[in-house]
Amino acid sequence: MKAVIVTIGDEILIGQIVDTNSGFIAKCLNKIGIEVNEMLSISDDKKHILDTLSNLQNKFDLVIITGGLGPTKDDITKKTLCEYMNDTLVYNNQVLDHVTQLIEVFFKRPITQINKDQALVPSRCEVLFNQVGTAPGMWMEKEDTVFISLPGVPFEMKYLIENQVIPKLVEKFDRPYIIHQTLLTYGVGESLLAERIEKWEDNLPDFIKLAYLPNPGRVRLRLSARGSNEEVLKKALEEQINLLKPQIEDCLVGLDDDEPLEFVLGRLLSSKGFSISTAESCTGGKIASVITSVSGASVYFKGSVVSYATEVKEDILAIPHELIQKESVVSSAVAEAMALSIQKKFQTDFAIATTGNAGPNKGDSDAEVGTVFVGIATPKGVFSEEFNFGQPREKVIDRAVNKGLELIYKEILKNY
Amino acid sequence: MKAVIVTIGDEILIGQIVDTNSGFIAKCLNKIGIEVNEMLSISDDKKHILDTLSNLQNKFDLVIITGGLGPTKDDITKKTLCEYMNDTLVYNNQVLDHVTQLIEVFFKRPITQINKDQALVPSRCEVLFNQVGTAPGMWMEKEDTVFISLPGVPFEMKYLIENQVIPKLVEKFDRPYIIHQTLLTYGVGESLLAERIEKWEDNLPDFIKLAYLPNPGRVRLRLSARGSNEEVLKKALEEQINLLKPQIEDCLVGLDDDEPLEFVLGRLLSSKGFSISTAESCTGGKIASVITSVSGASVYFKGSVVSYATEVKEDILAIPHELIQKESVVSSAVAEAMALSIQKKFQTDFAIATTGNAGPNKGDSDAEVGTVFVGIATPKGVFSEEFNFGQPREKVIDRAVNKGLELIYKEILKNY
Repeated sequence: MKAVIVTIGDEILIGQIVDTNSGFIAKCLNKIGIEVNEMLSISDDKKHILDTLSNLQNKFDLVIITGGLGPTKDDITKKTLCEYMNDTLVYNNQVLDHVTQLIEVFFKRPITQINKDQALVPSRCEVLFNQVGTAPGMWMEKEDTVFISLPGVPFEMKYLIENQVIPKLVEKFDRPYIIHQTLLTYGVGESLLAERIEKWEDNLPDFIKLAYLPNPGRVRLRLSARGSNEEVLKKALEEQINLLKPQIEDCLVGLDDDEPLEFVLGRLLSSKGFSISTAESCTGGKIASVITSVSGASVYFKGSVVSYATEVKEDILAIPHELIQKESVVSSAVAEAMALSIQKKFQTDFAIATTGNAGPNKGDSDAEVGTVFVGIATPKGVFSEEFNFGQPREKVIDRAVNKGLELIYKEILKNY
Repeated sequence: MKAVIVTIGDEILIGQIVDTNSGFIAKCLNKIGIEVNEMLSISDDKKHILDTLSNLQNKFDLVIITGGLGPTKDDITKKTLCEYMNDTLVYNNQVLDHVTQLIEVFFKRPITQINKDQALVPSRCEVLFNQVGTAPGMWMEKEDTVFISLPGVPFEMKYLIENQVIPKLVEKFDRPYIIHQTLLTYGVGESLLAERIEKWEDNLPDFIKLAYLPNPGRVRLRLSARGSNEEVLKKALEEQINLLKPQIEDCLVGLDDDEPLEFVLGRLLSSKGFSISTAESCTGGKIASVITSVSGASVYFKGSVVSYATEVKEDILAIPHELIQKESVVSSAVAEAMALSIQKKFQTDFAIATTGNAGPNKGDSDAEVGTVFVGIATPKGVFSEEFNFGQPREKVIDRAVNKGLELIYKEILKNY
């Protein structure tokens, strides 16, 4: 079975927006054993869309399209798909009721013609009802190819993929199994690692594929197995990993399942009944924001003080002026004092604190751009680590956020 | 002139990595008048790559490829391109010296065969020397199509695009001009806006294209003009914008080079010498995080209290227990009290506060999922507004963040 994901929209082609939808869809398809062979972004241009559709129909069994379903004139996906299907647009009553409800009850204004036309769909299409927005998803078939059209707004697309598309695909297609397993290694470069495990790699069975995913300071090894028997795949993967492990023992951190750390940490905190708070300087509230992106975070997260100005560190977190004078505001001592202060103030079991210089210019201290101290307060005490995350600002902040979550996660796993 | 950007790598097709390279390259090409017609992601598979290359050669003048140039076995772009060009791989001495230098001097270890092979290039290709990494870029031509192959590591790709690719493209191709201008509007939905400016849109000249870019709470209108005379384009764009402005006066925030509101707000605060703080419940620190994503935010942003737990609202922000009991924690009264409290505590001119229920379940109050109160404290007093941002959680949080920034931005513009 061959699948392609198409995004329609000039905003992607001019680099104004990065397409994150396709990756999300690919992950969901992979979980049900559908491999994505291509991703494609094309413009909001009728001829371009028509040419692409007929070209893809010859090559793929499944074409998932996002974008171009908005109510405005530049959104031409629906009309163009309808033309491609030799169909006509008709009003769908369920969608029309829903749109009317949304606009009149929810937004408290009269419905306009443009809004009503959101309920127009090709007469032969199957509507994928969009509970969370005004543009319905559409399922169409032409010869042996399934075309699915979804809105480009990420949360609407996600809703439809999870609640409508995946269940219907599972029902319609026989699929093989695809299993990925990623191993996270630290401290040995990609080429050295490759030479070391070359023999093992050469002996991998055909149905298992290896990929190297290098990042600064770490390499992930991804093994992908594909076949019709899930148990056989699992066993083969396990065997290969057992052969590999002794060869990379010194740099292997662990298996890695791609789930964001804030979810894993959240589950760990909940299960142990621990609470947490943060005191953030250079991360500016982003650790708190990432923690609270998980629904149900209120069970373990009490809050944060973002002490961006030095005076807030002194006045609200009660960090002694002398300590800041003596050690500098970007220091191990201040990170630890911040962590202890917020832990006490918010009466939590654990606390994360950050102080650093995210750049691009030097701030209230002389610390090099990229320097960050992360402090961790625990029921047994406090510790901190120093990092230099380089540049640019965005990367420094994100790496500090990840490091804060990672340090506390590892600490709890190890000692609690 | 038609251009396509191709990324090679299974990590993108399984959704493990989001492709940000193509957007960067598209932006750079746009600046020199080259429009990107398609973006494509394909797998590390020889046949797939060969088929794609020959298919693209018929349709495009310029094919820019990223990825698959690493030293490991899964990186097959170079070999495959060489085969497609009917060429053979030869060592390039300049690259070999550079790789040797990097490994031996910088990484302080002996060079391996895998490293040396990074210096292999197709004999007829023009090497795009990569000062910042071991994989060279390559410029090849077949019939009338230019193929450029670049490493997928973002900073190496960026270095080569800026220092090698763009200068060479400028020299080789005659190009038209492409100018984009984006207008940022707040508070009027996409469909209402579209109806309001329909006549103006219908009268746009052919060489100017309009796109609606909706985000929760705001819509950006992007005008793109394309032609051979830069001055004519600029003048035509200006005329159209002048015609448009009076029709959207009430919701227009300003022209923007895709500039997010936090940057515009930051400049406004700086220029007027105002300071700001936030007290956040349902937004969980994200307003602070967005504000501090702007470098130099420390000039106007002092900090935040994320009072996620009700007890933090009482203990740290000193919101009276009775007020919360009487009005409920998700209420106008509490939002205003939070704003006034943080304004006073952090001694700032303005403050933003949020309290609400982001869902998916009800929290410490009976408020409907999606209900958010935003409180704004100013030097002259305090006010608040109630919203219902629907679902899901992610959208509620993002809309509350945008609304907080918008309310304070408009308030300062209007009254200060």
